[in-house]
Amino acid sequence: MDYNVFFDRALGQLRDERRYRVFADLERLAGRFPHAIWHSPDGPRDVVIWCSNDYLGMAQHPKVVGAMVETAMRMGTGAGGTRNIAGTNHPLIELERELAELHGKQAALVFTSGYVSNETGISTLARLLPNCLLLSDALNHNSMIEGVRKSGSEKQVWRHNDVEHLEQLLRAAAPERPKLILCESLYSMDGDVAPLHRICDLAERYDALTYVDEVHAVGMYGPHGGGIAERDGAMGRIDVIEGTLAKAFGCLGGYIAANANLIDAVRSYAPGFIFTTALPPAICAAATAAIRHLKTSQSERDRHQDRAARLKLVLNAARLPVMQSDTHIVPLHVGDPEKCKTACDLLLSEYGIYIQPINYPTVPRGMERLRITPSPYHDDALIDRLAEALADVWDRLGLDRVDQVLAAE
Amino acid sequence: MDYNVFFDRALGQLRDERRYRVFADLERLAGRFPHAIWHSPDGPRDVVIWCSNDYLGMAQHPKVVGAMVETAMRMGTGAGGTRNIAGTNHPLIELERELAELHGKQAALVFTSGYVSNETGISTLARLLPNCLLLSDALNHNSMIEGVRKSGSEKQVWRHNDVEHLEQLLRAAAPERPKLILCESLYSMDGDVAPLHRICDLAERYDALTYVDEVHAVGMYGPHGGGIAERDGAMGRIDVIEGTLAKAFGCLGGYIAANANLIDAVRSYAPGFIFTTALPPAICAAATAAIRHLKTSQSERDRHQDRAARLKLVLNAARLPVMQSDTHIVPLHVGDPEKCKTACDLLLSEYGIYIQPINYPTVPRGMERLRITPSPYHDDALIDRLAEALADVWDRLGLDRVDQVLAAE
Repeated sequence: MDYNVFFDRALGQLRDERRYRVFADLERLAGRFPHAIWHSPDGPRDVVIWCSNDYLGMAQHPKVVGAMVETAMRMGTGAGGTRNIAGTNHPLIELERELAELHGKQAALVFTSGYVSNETGISTLARLLPNCLLLSDALNHNSMIEGVRKSGSEKQVWRHNDVEHLEQLLRAAAPERPKLILCESLYSMDGDVAPLHRICDLAERYDALTYVDEVHAVGMYGPHGGGIAERDGAMGRIDVIEGTLAKAFGCLGGYIAANANLIDAVRSYAPGFIFTTALPPAICAAATAAIRHLKTSQSERDRHQDRAARLKLVLNAARLPVMQSDTHIVPLHVGDPEKCKTACDLLLSEYGIYIQPINYPTVPRGMERLRITPSPYHDDALIDRLAEALADVWDRLGLDRVDQVLAAE
Repeated sequence: MDYNVFFDRALGQLRDERRYRVFADLERLAGRFPHAIWHSPDGPRDVVIWCSNDYLGMAQHPKVVGAMVETAMRMGTGAGGTRNIAGTNHPLIELERELAELHGKQAALVFTSGYVSNETGISTLARLLPNCLLLSDALNHNSMIEGVRKSGSEKQVWRHNDVEHLEQLLRAAAPERPKLILCESLYSMDGDVAPLHRICDLAERYDALTYVDEVHAVGMYGPHGGGIAERDGAMGRIDVIEGTLAKAFGCLGGYIAANANLIDAVRSYAPGFIFTTALPPAICAAATAAIRHLKTSQSERDRHQDRAARLKLVLNAARLPVMQSDTHIVPLHVGDPEKCKTACDLLLSEYGIYIQPINYPTVPRGMERLRITPSPYHDDALIDRLAEALADVWDRLGLDRVDQVLAAE
C-alpha cells in the first residue's frame, strides 16, 4: 500500500482550497521588536512584524530576558521530569503563587501551553462532575472545543455572546445537573468582549460553574493585568480563569486559577498534566518577572491601547475596511482567501511588512481578513507606513475601500 | 449545588488509596547536578536527585545553557505566536533540520511537548488514513493511549513486546486496510526494549506503518544518540520516530521525524500543533546544542551505562530487589503503595535522597517500586551512600531482601 497517497491527497486538498500554509522563517531581535529578520528564499531581509501575539513586547523586556538568563545560568535549561518525578522546580511554585494572586484565587496550576490547559483542564473538570452539561460559546477556541470533545460530556453550544440563548439552554437543563459554562473574555479574531457580569448572573441563577479563557486579555486589561474580568470587576464571580504565559507575558505555557480544591483535583486527575515534563525553571522565572512588572506598570497597557486607537484612526482615514473591534485587535476585512493570501505575500515581499492571512477554518468563509496587532513599540511612522502599504496593495488587488463596501451592502 | 463536594470526593478517593501525590519543591543547581536544594516545610535542605529524566545531565551542560542564554539575550524569551502567526523562529527551523538528520529522515516537526507530539501526532496520522487500524503495545505511554482515543479509529492492543500476538492481529486484519503499529523502543518503568527489527519485519509483511516512541532512548543510545533504533540499525525501517527534547536533551518539547509528505500533512492538519504557541527560540537553540553535542560525544553515553551497571551491581550486592532491566532504568521492587511512599519519605527527610514512589496507575498494583535513574554525574560515593540508605530503609520498613523475595516465589 502506498501510504504517501493519503498524505498527498490531504495536502492537495489544502492547496486546492488555497489553505496550504507556508511558515515564514523569522528571527526576532531583542530590543528591536517589532523589527525582525525574515529568512526569505533569497536571503535575510529586514521586516516589521504586525501580527505578533507578544502583544506588549514583553518577550524582549530586560527584566523578563534577565530573569530567563539568570535562572538558566543558575538552574540549567530543563526541569528534568514531570511535576511528580523531579520536575517541580522552585520558580514554578513561585509562578503559581503569583498567578493565583493575580486573579484573586486560592491556587493556580501551570500547564505546558494554553492549549493544553484548556484541553486537559476542561476535559478533567467535566469528568469530575457527574453527568455534567457543558455550555460552550459558539466561537470558543479550538483548544476549548477539543477539551469539550475529550470530556465525553454532553455539550450545548450557545450563539456567540448571546446571553438570552445561554439562558434558554440553562433553563431547559435539569436543575440538579452540574453545569459548566465555557467562554472567552476577549475573542481574538474579532476583538470583541464577552458580557461577563451577565454570564455570571446566569451562572448564579442556574447554579452553574463558569470557566473563562482570558488568554488574549491577561496582562493587557485590568489595573494589574488580571484581564477583562479584573477590568470589569467580575474576577471574584468567575470560578475558573484560564490564561497564557505566551502572549502578553512573552514566554510559554498556560494555566488555570480557581479555588484550592478544584485546582488540586485537576492536578491529581489530568493526564495531560500528570504525564508531561514541567516547564523549565528559566521560563517560569521569566513569566513571573513579566507578571510582576505588569502588575504595577500601567504604561505598557496605556500605550498599547493608544497604538490600537491610532492605527484604527489612520486605517479608517485611508478608507480601509477596519472591522468593528472593542480592543487591541484590528481586523481588516478582505473576504476572499486567494486575495487575502496574495495581499500578505505582497506586503512581505515588497513592503517588508509581515502579517499573516486569516482564512477558513480560523474564520468563516467570506470573512477572510488580515488580523493586525499593534504593540506599544509600533510608533507613528510605522503605522503610517503600514497604512500606505495597505492602501497600495488594496488598489493593486482591486480590493474594496470602505465607501464601496458600504455601497455594496 | 456545592461543587466542592465533587472535588473533595475525588481527592478523598486518592488519599484513601494512598495515591495522593505531594510534589517536592526542588531547586536544581547548574554545575552541581545531581545535588539540589529541597524547599522542605522546615526550610531549604541539600538533597541528591536520583530520579531525574535529565538522564545525561545535559540541562546543566555549558554548551546547552550557553545556547539558551545567548539566544534569549539576542531574540528574547518567547516565540510570540503560533507557528503560522509569527511564531516560526529561525532556531526552530534549525532544530527541525537537526532532528531530521539525527534520525535519517526527510523532515521533522516539533511540538510543545513529547506528550503533545504523541497525542496530536498519532490522532492526526490515524485520521489521515481512512478506516485505519491502530495496533498498540499494551504498555504504551498515556500520551500514546490518548492519541489513539482521540483519533476515534479502531484500536487493538497487543501483549507487551509479544510479536507473535502482534502478528495474529495483523494476519486477522483486512489486507487492504491501512494499519499503524504503535510502540515504544524503551519502556521507562521496566527499562526493557522492544524487538524493533521483528516488529518492522511484520510491518513489511503485512503492509503497516510503524510509529516508535523513543523518548527514553534518544541521546542515550546509538552512535549519534539516535536512539535504540539507531543502535539496532533499524532506524531506516521505521516510518515515524517520536522523541523528546525534555529528557536526555535537557530542555522542553517533543517531535516526530518521518518522510516529508507525512510530516507536512501532520503539520497542516493537527489542531494541537496549529493552534498553539511555538517553542521559544532559546529553548530550540539549547536543544539543538544538546543534540549536536551528543551526536559526536560518546563519553556521556559510556559513563551513563557504566553508572547504571555499577548501581545495579552495588544494589544486588546489598540483596536489594533490583528488577530485571536491560537499560539505564533501575527499578527496585517494593510491591506495596504505602511502604513505597513511606520509603521515599524517609529517604528524603532522613537521608537527603530524592526518589519518587511509582505507584498505581503508573504501574500495576502489586508492582509498586522505586525507579532509580543514575546519570553520568552520580559518582561511586553517591552510589554507595544510596545503597546504604536503601538497605537501612528496607530494614526499618521490614521490606524483603532478594533471597527472601526468591524464597517467597
